Amino acid sequence: MLTQTHLFQEIHQQPTVLQNLFAAERVNIQRIADAIRARHITNVFIAARGTSDNAGRYAQYLFGAVNQLPVGLATPSLYSLYHRPPKFQDALVIGISQSGASPDIVSVVAAAQEQGAATLAITNIPDSPLGKSADYIIPLHAGQEQSVAATKTYTTQLMALALLSASLANDAEMFSTLEKIPLHLESILKMNDEIARAAERFRYMRVCVVIGRGFNYSTAFETALKIKELTYVLAEPYSSADFLHGPVALIEEAFPTLVIAPSGALQAEMLHFVETLNERGAEVIAISDVPEILQRARVQLPLRASVPEWASPLVSVAAGQLFAMHLANVRDYDVDRPRGLRKVTETK
Amino acid sequence: MLTQTHLFQEIHQQPTVLQNLFAAERVNIQRIADAIRARHITNVFIAARGTSDNAGRYAQYLFGAVNQLPVGLATPSLYSLYHRPPKFQDALVIGISQSGASPDIVSVVAAAQEQGAATLAITNIPDSPLGKSADYIIPLHAGQEQSVAATKTYTTQLMALALLSASLANDAEMFSTLEKIPLHLESILKMNDEIARAAERFRYMRVCVVIGRGFNYSTAFETALKIKELTYVLAEPYSSADFLHGPVALIEEAFPTLVIAPSGALQAEMLHFVETLNERGAEVIAISDVPEILQRARVQLPLRASVPEWASPLVSVAAGQLFAMHLANVRDYDVDRPRGLRKVTETK
Repeated sequence: MLTQTHLFQEIHQQPTVLQNLFAAERVNIQRIADAIRARHITNVFIAARGTSDNAGRYAQYLFGAVNQLPVGLATPSLYSLYHRPPKFQDALVIGISQSGASPDIVSVVAAAQEQGAATLAITNIPDSPLGKSADYIIPLHAGQEQSVAATKTYTTQLMALALLSASLANDAEMFSTLEKIPLHLESILKMNDEIARAAERFRYMRVCVVIGRGFNYSTAFETALKIKELTYVLAEPYSSADFLHGPVALIEEAFPTLVIAPSGALQAEMLHFVETLNERGAEVIAISDVPEILQRARVQLPLRASVPEWASPLVSVAAGQLFAMHLANVRDYDVDRPRGLRKVTETK
Repeated sequence: MLTQTHLFQEIHQQPTVLQNLFAAERVNIQRIADAIRARHITNVFIAARGTSDNAGRYAQYLFGAVNQLPVGLATPSLYSLYHRPPKFQDALVIGISQSGASPDIVSVVAAAQEQGAATLAITNIPDSPLGKSADYIIPLHAGQEQSVAATKTYTTQLMALALLSASLANDAEMFSTLEKIPLHLESILKMNDEIARAAERFRYMRVCVVIGRGFNYSTAFETALKIKELTYVLAEPYSSADFLHGPVALIEEAFPTLVIAPSGALQAEMLHFVETLNERGAEVIAISDVPEILQRARVQLPLRASVPEWASPLVSVAAGQLFAMHLANVRDYDVDRPRGLRKVTETK
């Protein structure tokens, strides 16, 4: 039974684990935020790979918009292989890793710690090398993730980052939005059967692009990664703006383009982008709660929940996870053991 | 005649324009570096799109390794669409754009300027909105670029960044290496006929991945972008480390993988990576001057020049440009006017 795979189970556990994380860590994260605020940081760097790096992409927009902090993604090889570590000053350095075991990520946080920068580990295994190398830890409380493709550890990473942002900002409205995320996620998961039916059409798709922008740039990256890991389709993620600077040349008749466009400040921009795709003959698959965007798509996947845009990556990604899982199902692939992957990847 | 296309001409003009840039701007860039040093910056953010963003990727490694400055890539939509600008403190903010005309890039630099951060524009059009919005300008002196696909403006951007890094570090050896780059580039361009022959084999390739790491992460991104723009092949760029965190599942028998691995600190790592690809049945195309890496590749494109690794992106990318151009030639595409692209892309 497809519903008995670890992947299916773990996708559907997300409302529960997010609720657990909120309950277990809210006070701890407020304490961490107070300590970080006292250190007068002016910039943030994040070290992560794969799915965790996509959580970092979310933090770039969230800490930028909410906390006015410029956030960069670190370059681990400068620490682990070149031994030419950049010097963090007045920075918060965050390592994000499900396992906490990848040496290159640990090397960035350990160097930052030695330099005296504020360091934070976000990991499902607090007792890991990453957890041990940082000043502060946020454990994900996601329970064991048995499927190789990360799902519940991704959304809990987003929740951890969002709680930290809200705590740094002392923003009660943000907490109240985050508290309701598990409920909204339940609604999104009700899209399961509809997404299963939609996936049939893409049985023989070889390549696609996945587009998101702003807060949901992260969602595009994470959805593309799930598609690659689970279905072996070359799915390349782009922001709509980057896509127009060159890669749009790829578009030919029927080129499949998955557009992730929850409502918010960018919806006019995304609507215009979908029109450009249509003019060029692309086949647009839209994950959105904006009627005008859905109407212009060949395949419509209406989001069954509308949340403030800054929080939308925590729910919209579930539609992407379901799409990738069902696409693997229609291709008869083993979703729990994708070829050539192991659960913990240790890169130098 | 294929040699009469703008693209062919502009690729082959690179040694000359790099020499011109070095001669014309070295003193100006030293002056800019002195002014920036006096402002005690502790971090760098770069705003750019497309090819220019790939120059930013080079700067992440170069300023990191040479000047110990953490470098992040900015998130333009926070400035241009969300109107939630992060606050730069003790930062150098660099806008890179051939045309200097894209509103989103200008918005980041203009906001940084208003906030009192140090701002620098690197552009081929000094009299552009970007040029006018920054404290300091480095003009590229590349002459008009008529081909839609950027080539000589990319390598001059790299040279501008490298001259700035060397000036900030007061490093005479770096200047001496950079002065010889045009000569080495001449040698690389002698690979033209050999690359033309190699490209035939990939007439019907539909997808590929392009791998580089460290300094040549930028080269992988830029080569993949040229392949997409000129040949409409979905070429996805990756660092070897990121690739192992999920996307390696894509690899199946004969999957084409272009590996860019000039000699240097990462060559053992890249050799190991090529062996992993071979075990999984990938077809490896290697651009390298390391005999052990070339020997393990199905298609060998030996780099005809060896330069210090930090400077290798200025020459190795020419092999990537030639590969993309000749792949377009064997497919009978118009290399000067790729479908659906214009020279200046203005995104918000």
